[in-house]
Amino acid sequence: MEKRKVKWNGWGYEDEEYPKDKAKKITEILSGFLGLSKDDFSPSITLDKIKIEPPKLNIEELQKKLKNSQVTSDKYERVLHSSGKSYKNLIRLRKGKVKKFPEAVIYIKDKREIETILEWCEKNKVACVPYGGGTSVVGGVDVEDIEKPVITCDLTELNRVISADEKSLTAKVEAGVRGPHLEEQLRKFRMALRHYPQSFMLSTLGGWIASRSAGHFSSRYGKIEEMIQSIEVITPKGVIRNFDVPATACGPDIPHLFAGSEGTLGIIVSATVKCHRIPTKKFSTSFVFPDFQSACEAARIIIQSEINPPLLRILDEREFMISSLVSGGTFNGGSLLLLGFEADEENEKAVEAEFEKSKEICQKLGGKEEGKRKLDDWKNEYFEQPYLRDILMDFCIVVDTLETATNWSNLMKLYDKVKSAIENAIFSRTLGGVSCRVTHVYTSGASLYFSFFAKSKKDEEEELWWEIKKSASDAISEGGGTISHHHGVGRDHKKWAEIELKDSLTLLKGIKEFLDPHKILNPGAIFD
Amino acid sequence: MEKRKVKWNGWGYEDEEYPKDKAKKITEILSGFLGLSKDDFSPSITLDKIKIEPPKLNIEELQKKLKNSQVTSDKYERVLHSSGKSYKNLIRLRKGKVKKFPEAVIYIKDKREIETILEWCEKNKVACVPYGGGTSVVGGVDVEDIEKPVITCDLTELNRVISADEKSLTAKVEAGVRGPHLEEQLRKFRMALRHYPQSFMLSTLGGWIASRSAGHFSSRYGKIEEMIQSIEVITPKGVIRNFDVPATACGPDIPHLFAGSEGTLGIIVSATVKCHRIPTKKFSTSFVFPDFQSACEAARIIIQSEINPPLLRILDEREFMISSLVSGGTFNGGSLLLLGFEADEENEKAVEAEFEKSKEICQKLGGKEEGKRKLDDWKNEYFEQPYLRDILMDFCIVVDTLETATNWSNLMKLYDKVKSAIENAIFSRTLGGVSCRVTHVYTSGASLYFSFFAKSKKDEEEELWWEIKKSASDAISEGGGTISHHHGVGRDHKKWAEIELKDSLTLLKGIKEFLDPHKILNPGAIFD
Repeated sequence: MEKRKVKWNGWGYEDEEYPKDKAKKITEILSGFLGLSKDDFSPSITLDKIKIEPPKLNIEELQKKLKNSQVTSDKYERVLHSSGKSYKNLIRLRKGKVKKFPEAVIYIKDKREIETILEWCEKNKVACVPYGGGTSVVGGVDVEDIEKPVITCDLTELNRVISADEKSLTAKVEAGVRGPHLEEQLRKFRMALRHYPQSFMLSTLGGWIASRSAGHFSSRYGKIEEMIQSIEVITPKGVIRNFDVPATACGPDIPHLFAGSEGTLGIIVSATVKCHRIPTKKFSTSFVFPDFQSACEAARIIIQSEINPPLLRILDEREFMISSLVSGGTFNGGSLLLLGFEADEENEKAVEAEFEKSKEICQKLGGKEEGKRKLDDWKNEYFEQPYLRDILMDFCIVVDTLETATNWSNLMKLYDKVKSAIENAIFSRTLGGVSCRVTHVYTSGASLYFSFFAKSKKDEEEELWWEIKKSASDAISEGGGTISHHHGVGRDHKKWAEIELKDSLTLLKGIKEFLDPHKILNPGAIFD
Repeated sequence: MEKRKVKWNGWGYEDEEYPKDKAKKITEILSGFLGLSKDDFSPSITLDKIKIEPPKLNIEELQKKLKNSQVTSDKYERVLHSSGKSYKNLIRLRKGKVKKFPEAVIYIKDKREIETILEWCEKNKVACVPYGGGTSVVGGVDVEDIEKPVITCDLTELNRVISADEKSLTAKVEAGVRGPHLEEQLRKFRMALRHYPQSFMLSTLGGWIASRSAGHFSSRYGKIEEMIQSIEVITPKGVIRNFDVPATACGPDIPHLFAGSEGTLGIIVSATVKCHRIPTKKFSTSFVFPDFQSACEAARIIIQSEINPPLLRILDEREFMISSLVSGGTFNGGSLLLLGFEADEENEKAVEAEFEKSKEICQKLGGKEEGKRKLDDWKNEYFEQPYLRDILMDFCIVVDTLETATNWSNLMKLYDKVKSAIENAIFSRTLGGVSCRVTHVYTSGASLYFSFFAKSKKDEEEELWWEIKKSASDAISEGGGTISHHHGVGRDHKKWAEIELKDSLTLLKGIKEFLDPHKILNPGAIFD
């Protein structure tokens, strides 16, 4: 079976694109609003235009040491693996600005060979970048600023469910498995992980763990770090594993140390995940609230009543308007709260009671049930969204998302501060817009997920993007939010992560120094 | 207000004891079964019989460096702080076998002074042992084998709720607060933590975190490490804190690194805890199952239906029999499953539906509702239990509990293996018994909590205890259970923890070496 090729300069597979009719509609709307002209059309260069030097490292020597894993210096592979999919990564690739590429890409077929690779890297002063789905939107992968020559370890061929324990609802899984393939394999054992980040189609279990990812249903099932029972990581100091039990008091937690390590402490090769039965029943509806604040208040009361809807999202007024516009619905103001529960025969009644109670809370707090929105269709729209960016980039439109989390008592203040910061950054320079949704809720607070777009002059996109991103990040940092709730730090957030981590950075760097004394693992990401 | 004194040679406060009528009944029952005689009576020595050298360290010098914290070399304080409350600790104290005591005890009144103390310890090659409730039952505190002279930092005067955020249901709390005082302070803000380990009356927030404690309601609310949003720890490398947000993807999780560190990586001085609204409604009942296995199966189905009862305990046949005997109830065989939910006005209906569904599952799986047991009375019996040990020790009865956790698919195998190991260890030497209960359930597995007693010859208790403990621990370790689900490692479990941690011990020791290069913090516990 031929491997589906991933786009080197955009989101998703090469044989996919954003639905044409939708794309047309959106560009028409934006064209009117932003005043686009033909001069703005600015498509990506093609692969053949990218200049790339032949590798200087002795790749043959490395290949000889590996029995199963495959080393390649193919141009497409080297370009694809030069970065993830942050706005900065893509705009630079599309314009041919990227000058550094990995010397070679190794498709790992045997986890034990990673030790050989790391040794070789240490000996030859070569950096090693682990690569899963390559979908980081914050610069988690970006070889450009790495001083050493780089080789990339692509994990996606380590993609099996090694074993499954139906009775305990757990499965030991290789880290390179992508979302759909993982769920497909688990289904055979009547289990589901139900971790659906927006990158699900491409991103991998290892990548989710490395970046502390959250998914569509995380408000109930938790972030990825809460789904991991044990982990296996290959580091320059050897293999690290922890004992596979539901809970323990035998020392500190190992999976939580590698969750969020972004490839800098070791290469995650497998994990035992805690699964769920496959839900067969859905309960969903939506409520329109007078404003974002009252919708957030309803969400707070629901979650603090110990009710955990897998889906609880809130679109602020602007996001609700855009969403209505695109879907062709009417918009009469207000903020939209989406509510979704899932169950099977066994727990249907209990879940239904939670659903009813949640609806009651929404009504009590001023929500009007709209209910028309078919939440079962979330998948298409949700997974489609990232593809839109490529279309907009063709028209010099800077477009990105960023996210944070804070306590309930600070939520509206942070929301106002970040929204204002983004608006000021955009409107002092050009036209554009910003909207926000709440994507995950906790008893103590919630995450805020901002989307923005702004019209740029040709070839000034990166600068404009950075001005907006910087303003937003300053506002998050000063406003008491975390610099990332589920995208990670990468390179884009590093400056603010250093502020946020200030009282633990010494410790984290100490751990880095211990595990990777030659600093070969993903240098330049979160820890140096 | 005079401080209530804690027993130096037993459980609890000096003005407390196990209810006399119950004690009489139990000793009568055991007397018949074990053949106790007057010769077996073997009470503890009194404090004046303990020989203790005056401190050799220059305590005055240390006191001068501290403005607020109070250094004492009082005999009672030194003896009390020499260890926690493991069986080994108590039997040795009662018999006057303990030869080493801390040189001094410092009641910390200002967290900043801990840095001064750690510096002084490093300079003078003195070990520093953090001390909370002093309730470790696995040797978490035990100065006997520490080579360096020891000073103990008692944290219990750092016991305030520093701030509370009612809207976010969080509170920043000093680590030395004991359970009842914490809940009392939180109640003023209409919040509750609802973490009820059996040591609740004495143990402290910092101790819970250091040992990865679990409480009576943990099946729903999680172990202590899941209740912590941020933490502040003073280490020889400086103060470590993490950013206080509900969730983050900004680097690895810091609280999870100190949870389970047992005082070896730093001294926990405060934490922000995630609380709950105060429940006002209770739903509880009990079911008798034909056997332990079928009761466990019901528990598995309930929790895997995503229903999380705060209370789901199962008494095996032996434990059910003993419990019936002591409470004066009838016992007709079988295994008892206790079920308890709690709610307030807001979520009453949803919780009731969970309760009804759980009952339905129990019935379907062969449980007969007994329902007579008043689960509201759990507190008295639950908190009373540890006091019983002192009474039995007076009669040369070795008595202890030990616990583990494993996946559902391994639960019955592990149960049989550990029970047999304990029975063999006892019956090849003497008379006694063992019983078991399931105390915490997870979607992937459950914990097993064993209680055993055995008649010893006078002055051979420690050896007999160790033979039984060793057999049980070998069985747990070989049987795929964790050596501790919620008591911690301390010194009693160290041998098996080293096996369990084998593939992460290098890393953990590396972290220890980084944070505490002079090895002054609680030497001999979990990491050396």
